[in-house]
Amino acid sequence: MKKQLLFALTLFIIFQAAIISAYAQVESLAPGVQKISVGVPDKFTPYGFRLESPMKTALGELPAAKLPFDINDISISVNNRGVIVKIPLDTSEQLYGFGLQFGSFDQRGLKIKPIVNDNPLNDLGYSHGPTTFYVSNKGYGILINTARYVTFYCGNTARLNDGKGNGVQHSDGNSVQALYQSDNKASGNVLVDVPGAKGIEVFVFEGPDLKNAMQRYNLFAGGGALPAIWGLGIKYRVKADFNQQQVGKMAAYFRNNHMPCDVLGLEPKWQTTAYSCSYVWNKNLFPSPNAFIDTMKNKGFHLNLWEHAFVSTASPLYAPLKTKAGNYLVWNGLVPDFADSTASNLFANYHENIFVKEGISGFKMDECDNSNIAFGSHAWSFPELSSFPSGIDGEQMHQLFGMLYDKTIFNIYKKNNLRTYLDVRASNDFASPYPSALYSDTYDHKQYIRLIVNSGFSGMNWSPEVRESNSIKDLMRRSQTAVLSAQTLYNSWYLKNPPWLQINKEKNNAGELMDNASAIETDVRELLNFRMSLIPYLYNAYADYHFKGIPPFRALVMDYPTDKKTFSISDEYMIGNGILAAPLTEKEDERVVYLPEGTWYDYNTNQKYIGGKEYTVKTGLTQLPIFIKEGTILPLATPVGYVGQDTKFEITCLVYGNNPASTTLFEDDGTSFNYEKGSYNIVTLSWQKNKGSVKRNGKFKNNRYVIKKWQLIN
Amino acid sequence: MKKQLLFALTLFIIFQAAIISAYAQVESLAPGVQKISVGVPDKFTPYGFRLESPMKTALGELPAAKLPFDINDISISVNNRGVIVKIPLDTSEQLYGFGLQFGSFDQRGLKIKPIVNDNPLNDLGYSHGPTTFYVSNKGYGILINTARYVTFYCGNTARLNDGKGNGVQHSDGNSVQALYQSDNKASGNVLVDVPGAKGIEVFVFEGPDLKNAMQRYNLFAGGGALPAIWGLGIKYRVKADFNQQQVGKMAAYFRNNHMPCDVLGLEPKWQTTAYSCSYVWNKNLFPSPNAFIDTMKNKGFHLNLWEHAFVSTASPLYAPLKTKAGNYLVWNGLVPDFADSTASNLFANYHENIFVKEGISGFKMDECDNSNIAFGSHAWSFPELSSFPSGIDGEQMHQLFGMLYDKTIFNIYKKNNLRTYLDVRASNDFASPYPSALYSDTYDHKQYIRLIVNSGFSGMNWSPEVRESNSIKDLMRRSQTAVLSAQTLYNSWYLKNPPWLQINKEKNNAGELMDNASAIETDVRELLNFRMSLIPYLYNAYADYHFKGIPPFRALVMDYPTDKKTFSISDEYMIGNGILAAPLTEKEDERVVYLPEGTWYDYNTNQKYIGGKEYTVKTGLTQLPIFIKEGTILPLATPVGYVGQDTKFEITCLVYGNNPASTTLFEDDGTSFNYEKGSYNIVTLSWQKNKGSVKRNGKFKNNRYVIKKWQLIN
Repeated sequence: MKKQLLFALTLFIIFQAAIISAYAQVESLAPGVQKISVGVPDKFTPYGFRLESPMKTALGELPAAKLPFDINDISISVNNRGVIVKIPLDTSEQLYGFGLQFGSFDQRGLKIKPIVNDNPLNDLGYSHGPTTFYVSNKGYGILINTARYVTFYCGNTARLNDGKGNGVQHSDGNSVQALYQSDNKASGNVLVDVPGAKGIEVFVFEGPDLKNAMQRYNLFAGGGALPAIWGLGIKYRVKADFNQQQVGKMAAYFRNNHMPCDVLGLEPKWQTTAYSCSYVWNKNLFPSPNAFIDTMKNKGFHLNLWEHAFVSTASPLYAPLKTKAGNYLVWNGLVPDFADSTASNLFANYHENIFVKEGISGFKMDECDNSNIAFGSHAWSFPELSSFPSGIDGEQMHQLFGMLYDKTIFNIYKKNNLRTYLDVRASNDFASPYPSALYSDTYDHKQYIRLIVNSGFSGMNWSPEVRESNSIKDLMRRSQTAVLSAQTLYNSWYLKNPPWLQINKEKNNAGELMDNASAIETDVRELLNFRMSLIPYLYNAYADYHFKGIPPFRALVMDYPTDKKTFSISDEYMIGNGILAAPLTEKEDERVVYLPEGTWYDYNTNQKYIGGKEYTVKTGLTQLPIFIKEGTILPLATPVGYVGQDTKFEITCLVYGNNPASTTLFEDDGTSFNYEKGSYNIVTLSWQKNKGSVKRNGKFKNNRYVIKKWQLIN
Repeated sequence: MKKQLLFALTLFIIFQAAIISAYAQVESLAPGVQKISVGVPDKFTPYGFRLESPMKTALGELPAAKLPFDINDISISVNNRGVIVKIPLDTSEQLYGFGLQFGSFDQRGLKIKPIVNDNPLNDLGYSHGPTTFYVSNKGYGILINTARYVTFYCGNTARLNDGKGNGVQHSDGNSVQALYQSDNKASGNVLVDVPGAKGIEVFVFEGPDLKNAMQRYNLFAGGGALPAIWGLGIKYRVKADFNQQQVGKMAAYFRNNHMPCDVLGLEPKWQTTAYSCSYVWNKNLFPSPNAFIDTMKNKGFHLNLWEHAFVSTASPLYAPLKTKAGNYLVWNGLVPDFADSTASNLFANYHENIFVKEGISGFKMDECDNSNIAFGSHAWSFPELSSFPSGIDGEQMHQLFGMLYDKTIFNIYKKNNLRTYLDVRASNDFASPYPSALYSDTYDHKQYIRLIVNSGFSGMNWSPEVRESNSIKDLMRRSQTAVLSAQTLYNSWYLKNPPWLQINKEKNNAGELMDNASAIETDVRELLNFRMSLIPYLYNAYADYHFKGIPPFRALVMDYPTDKKTFSISDEYMIGNGILAAPLTEKEDERVVYLPEGTWYDYNTNQKYIGGKEYTVKTGLTQLPIFIKEGTILPLATPVGYVGQDTKFEITCLVYGNNPASTTLFEDDGTSFNYEKGSYNIVTLSWQKNKGSVKRNGKFKNNRYVIKKWQLIN
């Protein structure tokens, strides 16, 4: 009798499994990366438009992993409304991701709609850089391969009849807080709602740990981007109505005053018309653009052009693109159907011939997100109901538009074997191989810091740009954050003078400089010089991003996934392997810093801290709010005014502690993709018996790093 | 040759028209109300769940109208993504509606998502009371009969190849404002995006003018609700943890101190468990609930019970509803499938037997909206991907949930021939016949005033409740607004004492009354007494709402649709035919008031103002910020402490100007639906040759209004 029961039970289990496997197909795409498919997946997806192929070799070198659940326990159902995906969730798990989230960090317990928008809207999930991807501190990642507007319920639902979630009652009903309290641990899964879909692909990235899962995600996307080395210097965007001469004067200001600067950005008015765009030089302001590009180049400046993708009738691109555009206009301009390669090619060829071949080093791709309400003004961009010749609809186009635009522009540079560092205002899944930084108009410093932290879960670079400031302290704190980010950018598109000469917008434009302008300039120079010193270290972190998938900027929890205190820290982050940054904002002279296990050195004072604790630390305005992990060799360069083709970096190695691990520098030409064919060196820096040593391996012939000095700190 | 061309052109036009008419069916539903159907409309719609039948006779009595466009120019297309509706829009039109919008009023140029939510989210369109309905000042209304999440683009899109919207460029690109500026007049239509639909019904309401269009909407829904007359008095909700004795003490406070009060509301703790709900009296706090109800009744108090619809395991309703509920729980409680009449009936029968038959006069139906982020806490309510036994999905259930809940409860009272006045936190299209007031936790006074104004476009009653206050002035200004609204409610669910004895929450609960508590009580009494005086006038306005569809509270533009100055006024409104209200908020001693054409009297000073202009007017804290239109007979009653079954109102008629129009009072028992069978009187008040006259017409036997005095003001 017992045997029969067991037999029936086994049959029942097999039968149940059969129902699931009949629909769900699991495929291994690369080491530790699996895809589950159900139904008829969408034609237009983030993966379908991926920039690069997976880096399978690097993926194979990661430690083997095992999911904390059976992959078949991911349940996917298709109904009239769309697709529902259910992913198991342990009661102790913490979740991170969904792209550049402004207000949230640990996503467990939240309802998140990762929708592309310039307005974060009370943490609904809206962002310039949303992703349908999350990682768990249990060491795996999940990506829903869709360009639809989806909702993630991160363990905050309770299903009827699932044997959980009954009987919990509130003890106190006398406050709003108490009434609305919910038990976030109640649900045993993450639910994903994909309305409108008839099928779905779910990508599962194994760990074994949180960082490994992120590495797999980034490597699967093609590896992290290695920006042109000059992109890691200082970018400065000049006032929108500056003419050729005024830009030239600004360039001279930087060189004459020894303020480092690599890139000058031109804003809308370089074009004959913008909003929508002509992509034609405004000869009134720039009578000889190509000669101007050359002059700037000779002075070591790269030029970056602002634009957006909405094509004015005044543009030579209007006529060819008119039949390859969406059926709604934005600012009366065409919306190119970038989902169709003919539209992309037309757009790219024009940009290649008119700009890239003439020496333009990059673009700022603005307004490719979407907006509901922009700064008290009205909504803009194309409606979600738009249709495009390729067949993609407006909703899916919105989610992919920034990325497709970025792809169109990036591929020009790739084709010309030129590296770049772009600005783009929207992105999505599989963004890692794009050498592009995202930015926003929201300008909340605390959020900007959180976005650096969240960028490590996004495969994106975040640029916490500096514009005007409320106070000198605000300017300095924002500058510190910018220096400790993926891109150091002063965006002065509405400022005549650099903000460090006058923080106030009106006075700045009236030419009224601050009394202490020169002193503040000196202070800012000190910070910018530190950025220039950090370039070799940062560049190596980006090489780790490219070859190993390790995000150069990342949350503490990624390096310390078992340290519960790191689970919710969204205002500190790691830069590379040895630096912990804890930026301060306008009102702060000091702040509480949590330092994980190990020993840490205050970079400014060399004071030692025992990890696993919180400390209150003061950081001056010209100092850097960073802590160096014991065991780190920190290579810092003598600052240069800009990174030229032949720049040699003179390096001082700061050795923290007596037994540091050896570290590396990545050496190549910094501006071509030749490294992809092996033309690079790995420079290994070691410290043994109180002596530093340098070992160089690789095929690149031109040494860029000169190790000048070693200095032990302990 | 020319003839042939004309022939071809004609054929072409006919052919085009044929394509449209082959799909679109236009049907006349009632005088001036047409329905266009395309494709396969949804099974679950606001119209499908309507409470009442259209009032066809009243509709037929409205002046004949003509749409400003051919109804066939409304284009509807169905594609893979869903349905797109395009409605013609004149360049000069202003649009209003989409329910209780918090931040917006004139909707032209906006992108609006009327989605049910407790969090207005930067004016995306979210609201407790969204509707898919708008009216134009050109005198027509449009309703999209869907419970899906839709987006309205109100004339802010430009289509490629439509011959418009090309060539407009910005003159100035030096500010964010200038860059994002868009030309709101660019588009010749309203676009509606209905993702997921396979067909749609569009209801078109003719005018001829704006008010007539609203009247048609309200009459088509079944006519405006006539609340129980006691509902127009004062409602006071007591602290959530009060027991029977404490409630009794509070009741005694009102009577002993001559503070008017008709309704006492009990909050969550009257139940054994709430969040989710048991719907069972907590005998610890209320040992003898039915006796308690009777005691209160004898003192002239109606009792209102707080609840929400999420059914706890501790509830007798749990077992019967378990198979008639959604597949996700809220606060671990069942979500009854109110789209299925068996679930509604179970819920209603229980409430009828246990509460209504025992004398409970009404309910506060809380939490039937939805939430993304509630007060920094987490999202709650059921996911949109939920499924219900009836076949409705979670998205559509969310849009309809408040209304279906309201219908379930209201129908108990209807069945018992008892009128009521309910509180409900969500509603939708065709809400007019519900005697229910909506409310919110947002507590922004300026928004609360705007919501009164928008309620007139919504078929909803808005209750700007008073809780704690920042200052005495805040309390008094909020009280003025409450007195001049559809429901005067003090919601003290977390306050031990009335807010006028202590405005500060902590001190209030510590029993620490203000030094000047007694003086403030006197001031508040003055305002509340005015409310009691206004009941006959208000009740008549509600009769106009019921029989003629005229909203009792409405924007100035509804009465003055050709006065451009009224187009964007969202902080003044009409009450009935003769009162213009212009409430002030905490910081104001005076405010700018626009008075439309005609002559107006400051109610407080009798100062005359010539209309068509703005005036700066001071209003004291115990005065009422109202202006009376010349030609009005304003009947005000001697205030009573509450409205009992036998209350007679002693009326003073204030006559503004020498030649007033006659006015009416609506007379019936105030508590039954017998008026639907003709048991009511119309009391006509006239003033001729310096003398007032009263004429009574109708079948109701019991005179409630005694006209005591006439007073000419001019």
